[in-house]
Amino acid sequence: MIDTGLRIERSSNPKQKPDPEQLSFGKVFTDHMFVMDYTEEKGWHDPRIVPYGSITLDPAAMVFHYGQTVFEGLKAYRTNDDRILLFRPEKNIQRLNRSCHRISIPQIPEEAAIDYLVKLLQVDRDWVPSAEGTSLYIRPFVFANEINLSAVPSTEYTFMIILSPVGSYYKEGIQPVNIYVEDEFTRAVRGGTGTAKTGGNYSASYIAQEKAAEKGYAQVMWLDGIEKKYIEEVGSMNVFFKIDGEIVTPILNGSILEGVTRMSIIELLRDWGYPVAERKISMEELFAAYEKGKLEEAFGTGTAAVVSPIGQLNWKEHQMVINDKRIGELSKKLYDTLTGIQRGQLPDPFNWNREVNE
Amino acid sequence: MIDTGLRIERSSNPKQKPDPEQLSFGKVFTDHMFVMDYTEEKGWHDPRIVPYGSITLDPAAMVFHYGQTVFEGLKAYRTNDDRILLFRPEKNIQRLNRSCHRISIPQIPEEAAIDYLVKLLQVDRDWVPSAEGTSLYIRPFVFANEINLSAVPSTEYTFMIILSPVGSYYKEGIQPVNIYVEDEFTRAVRGGTGTAKTGGNYSASYIAQEKAAEKGYAQVMWLDGIEKKYIEEVGSMNVFFKIDGEIVTPILNGSILEGVTRMSIIELLRDWGYPVAERKISMEELFAAYEKGKLEEAFGTGTAAVVSPIGQLNWKEHQMVINDKRIGELSKKLYDTLTGIQRGQLPDPFNWNREVNE
Ligand SMILES: Cc1ncc(COP(=O)(O)O)c(C=O)c1O
Ligand SMILES: Cc1ncc(COP(=O)(O)O)c(C=O)c1O
Repeated sequence: MIDTGLRIERSSNPKQKPDPEQLSFGKVFTDHMFVMDYTEEKGWHDPRIVPYGSITLDPAAMVFHYGQTVFEGLKAYRTNDDRILLFRPEKNIQRLNRSCHRISIPQIPEEAAIDYLVKLLQVDRDWVPSAEGTSLYIRPFVFANEINLSAVPSTEYTFMIILSPVGSYYKEGIQPVNIYVEDEFTRAVRGGTGTAKTGGNYSASYIAQEKAAEKGYAQVMWLDGIEKKYIEEVGSMNVFFKIDGEIVTPILNGSILEGVTRMSIIELLRDWGYPVAERKISMEELFAAYEKGKLEEAFGTGTAAVVSPIGQLNWKEHQMVINDKRIGELSKKLYDTLTGIQRGQLPDPFNWNREVNE
Repeated sequence: MIDTGLRIERSSNPKQKPDPEQLSFGKVFTDHMFVMDYTEEKGWHDPRIVPYGSITLDPAAMVFHYGQTVFEGLKAYRTNDDRILLFRPEKNIQRLNRSCHRISIPQIPEEAAIDYLVKLLQVDRDWVPSAEGTSLYIRPFVFANEINLSAVPSTEYTFMIILSPVGSYYKEGIQPVNIYVEDEFTRAVRGGTGTAKTGGNYSASYIAQEKAAEKGYAQVMWLDGIEKKYIEEVGSMNVFFKIDGEIVTPILNGSILEGVTRMSIIELLRDWGYPVAERKISMEELFAAYEKGKLEEAFGTGTAAVVSPIGQLNWKEHQMVINDKRIGELSKKLYDTLTGIQRGQLPDPFNWNREVNE
């Protein structure tokens, strides 16, 4: 970092805030955004908060060609007493840097990045919605923008943070979803990019998502790319199973994204005294447990939904109905506890929240 | 296609053409570019040739977040008698559509796309360089640009073609390169995106490329993602071996890109009466052939280099020196024949060339 001074240019033309009851996901943005540039000569430089607006790029900018992009997703919540809370933002920034490493993007100074994010939230503080279930979604992202068609790491990058007020994930209350176990397409494989939040992983998954949707399923469950046997993730979420009293989640094997919600849920469960195993789990094993009546609960975890119960799993010719398609007791307790902490309605014993001062 | 009429807006400010002796790769662009938009309502529409210039996008445009991009690469050559030739452009446009399919991008009308490309080349005809070894590199690409942070296929896209005069790949004559067989990182896997020319495949490979470069190698040889045993590609090229008189290339197994150069070389070799096998080939097998003195030649194939001889292969603790680090006889014959056809210096018995009229 050559430049440490953050420049703030306030919008002279603030937008109308959307109706909090009508909020959807990721289509409306706040008045400001954070931007910082990278060149080989200067490193990361010129951090600035400026009015939200367009980017102008050459058509030969590398982002259009070689997918050298990484991103993060986290949320800010408004508490009943009007404080603004961030949930474990350092975990997201650390993961951003791990993603950068995998995709050959230079490391971002972590403390400064959190500082910039906090400043951006101070500037756009009024945009954090307060209605039940709403939040301000935060999207840090980095993209390559050297003008060069050679397939080599870019020498220039832009790091941005944009903010979007989002509605409740569960507008009609939590509904367990039905999931299709994908056995043809692969999300990620050992030695690939599955542990990184990089664009290519997401566009690569659409084809399977579309196939599942056509068959009437909400999401895909991904199996490992090697043996097509072991469970990895569900949609863009990590996945947990309660089997005969024990909570099992796939071990971080080099192709699974390390979710912040996942790690928080493991910490909560261990704190509560539940047995939690991070290990390989095959569909065969899951199905055997199901047949014995021991598959008690199943749920995905992620920033967007926090906990997303699985009501039905389709695997080959088998239809597995889990907990009568109702949300499980433990799933509910995890959801209530985690959202309660995030929204400042419950104590925060692990010091997960970071408050954004006025 | 609602709109079939191509609109042409000529640049009023033509640029200076670069010194043909100083041309590098993909940094200088011609006076014009082709652009066409897609929306769900209109399909592909408003095809136009306009002055080369910047693109303006919202920071929430999907291309920055979810890697929904595909591209192609082909070349136009100027013959000694000043004709402009395209090499099998329909193969690239067909592959573009296969890439689109994998990445959930709507299909592009193929005949129209070739037509637009030809028109663009007519407009920028003077930019096709004539010096020995030079050519005009053509980069068609598509990117998602809906403003939406949901990880779903975009409802809006842009298809562009940009052109860049490029220098000879072999400025100092053909030099066989040394290659590092990568056993940690994976380029692509069955069920993944390896058969598509999509950005994520390329940025994902940089880390291995950098590792190889640090160890003093020019390129990486990729093994299959499942067993890490079978040879797939070399750098961004397909790969061929001449073993005991037979030419062997990895079979298209669902994770290898189907190169236009690869298919042309197979057709040439069969026409010449050589035995060609498209099959699985493991590093063990290759090494065993090497030890018996039967690995006669090895080379990569792609649009950029056409034929790139491999002089040395590093696999685990083994250093395999191939054909004394000199270009093999067959490699040379293939290079000379293919470049001769492409540049109109040899007859074109397979009707591969497409001429761009004035
Ligand atoms: C592929 C994938 N897995 C898992 C997750 C869950 O991670 P987190 O809990 O940090 O949101 C996400 C979302 O961030 C994801 O994109
Ligand atoms: C991954 C990969 N493999 C192989 C090739 C060779 O393909 P082609 O001969 O069509 O240039 C390319 C380049 O296009 C490539 O990107």
